[in-house]
Amino acid sequence: MAGGEFDLIYRHLGIFGAGSQVRLGVGDDAAVLALPANSELVVSSDSVVEGTHFPEFTLPEHVATRAVAAAASDLAAMAAEPLAMTLALTLPEPDELWLHSFSQGLGRCVEALSLPLVGGDLTRGPLSVTVTVMGSVPTGRALVRSGAKPGDWLCVTHTLGDAAAGLALIMGQLQSDYEVAAEDEEFLETRFYQPTARLEWVSWLREHARSAIDISDGLLVDVAHMADASGCACIIDSGALPLSPALSRLDANLRLDLALAGGDDYELAVAVPPKTELPPGLVQVGEFHEGSGVQCDYIPAKRVGFDHFGA
Amino acid sequence: MAGGEFDLIYRHLGIFGAGSQVRLGVGDDAAVLALPANSELVVSSDSVVEGTHFPEFTLPEHVATRAVAAAASDLAAMAAEPLAMTLALTLPEPDELWLHSFSQGLGRCVEALSLPLVGGDLTRGPLSVTVTVMGSVPTGRALVRSGAKPGDWLCVTHTLGDAAAGLALIMGQLQSDYEVAAEDEEFLETRFYQPTARLEWVSWLREHARSAIDISDGLLVDVAHMADASGCACIIDSGALPLSPALSRLDANLRLDLALAGGDDYELAVAVPPKTELPPGLVQVGEFHEGSGVQCDYIPAKRVGFDHFGA
Repeated sequence: MAGGEFDLIYRHLGIFGAGSQVRLGVGDDAAVLALPANSELVVSSDSVVEGTHFPEFTLPEHVATRAVAAAASDLAAMAAEPLAMTLALTLPEPDELWLHSFSQGLGRCVEALSLPLVGGDLTRGPLSVTVTVMGSVPTGRALVRSGAKPGDWLCVTHTLGDAAAGLALIMGQLQSDYEVAAEDEEFLETRFYQPTARLEWVSWLREHARSAIDISDGLLVDVAHMADASGCACIIDSGALPLSPALSRLDANLRLDLALAGGDDYELAVAVPPKTELPPGLVQVGEFHEGSGVQCDYIPAKRVGFDHFGA
Repeated sequence: MAGGEFDLIYRHLGIFGAGSQVRLGVGDDAAVLALPANSELVVSSDSVVEGTHFPEFTLPEHVATRAVAAAASDLAAMAAEPLAMTLALTLPEPDELWLHSFSQGLGRCVEALSLPLVGGDLTRGPLSVTVTVMGSVPTGRALVRSGAKPGDWLCVTHTLGDAAAGLALIMGQLQSDYEVAAEDEEFLETRFYQPTARLEWVSWLREHARSAIDISDGLLVDVAHMADASGCACIIDSGALPLSPALSRLDANLRLDLALAGGDDYELAVAVPPKTELPPGLVQVGEFHEGSGVQCDYIPAKRVGFDHFGA
């Protein structure tokens, strides 16, 4: 990185690079990190692109929050402890105000998720953000998609469909048909703009879960990935889906569609052995069976999640 | 990742994911990698954007080569052994032909650099590629920018300025003033389109070097980073710069400018103790001194390298 570019990114983002496992952060050719003893590295990269993943008028701090959540929820789904992240930011032009707001959102993520920012690349171009997250698991203990067994319960970590409803509201796709109270609108839009990667579940998952996936494309689609990888079928009970009060006040068919097929919540879908004692917050919504495919209330589920290039 | 997107990236890029340290590659929420014992993780992310880092008509296989070289040369500069990479690819539309050509270039990099591809994200948007490379160094042995000492020699790993000359030719900025032979043009353009990260130097650097940086923004700019970080001055001898035969046939002033300030070669600038026995390929081009700043032939060097957002 050359002088001006480096100064710009370092000034705004260099303060987020400290952490007990960071041997060398932003400012050299690469970062150097120490992993805990007897552990393996877990790594995932995710991009968010303006106009594809968030509307053009999204506040920069929310761009940061969504970009980090999209990547960090993959760590949670692998039951990995957070280690650090790098950020590749493409901006149409150097914009101090934009970077200031972006860094506010980023700083909150760094702190809340214990993910120090150890590398950054700033380039000129259409707005997009790629976050690479790194974490660690004790050797051999990563929670993969293929671990579910017939009889296992399917659980989720929080209410579903809120972010998709929020996005529909933001895009003006709901107001004409539905009266949505101002506080419900605020709640739902916040769930879209400020998702939380569920890293607080990592220790519990390591102890109890057989498989997990983050719900980025919708429950049906993501559970289908888990069921396929595990060689199982899964039956979801629509009546068991946890819905927020705000979502519950929408039309019954709409809220069910949103909860089943709405992406962007970044909650976790988790397979646990039957009769596992579930802690508060984790809700059983289905069960794995012999066979293949995902059904909701015994009706075969179409794969209706968001697919960037069509199915 | 949803069905179609996942299929597309897996079909084209999933074959590059094998490696002795890869416990889990493309296809789960995240990849899992094993580091060698007593080592630290080295990580760097770099983006290349169409229109900023490469012309619009660049062949997809060359987009891949440049994107990987830009990131992987950072591993070389840290004296890190390659471990794996992830790729975040943003494409305007799903394009099987484009992906086929891109994967050809990527496959050659994976093999040549021993960098298996363990994660991929495919999104829709203006063309850009972010590569995150991971490597390992024995604990405490990363080669940082701040290690040069007064008296150390400044060396480079190969001829300089070729890629910048190649880009100028590609952009039609040289033809009118200079007669360039067809084979020279081909050589120079290939140096731009197909740079090589100098990972073959890693073992030698670990044994002998005090500091290194990859030359992505031009020798003067990048050596200035090294000198600043090391608290030294550096004097470059223009007569010692290794020039390719093709570059040598250009005008004397032009070739010197290109060798001093042209980026994109991804060669390494290396500080070694004085009187180090240099292996073939490594050429001394200057010396570190007490003081600060970089001079060429005792003339203070302006910082003229490529800076994405101006200096």
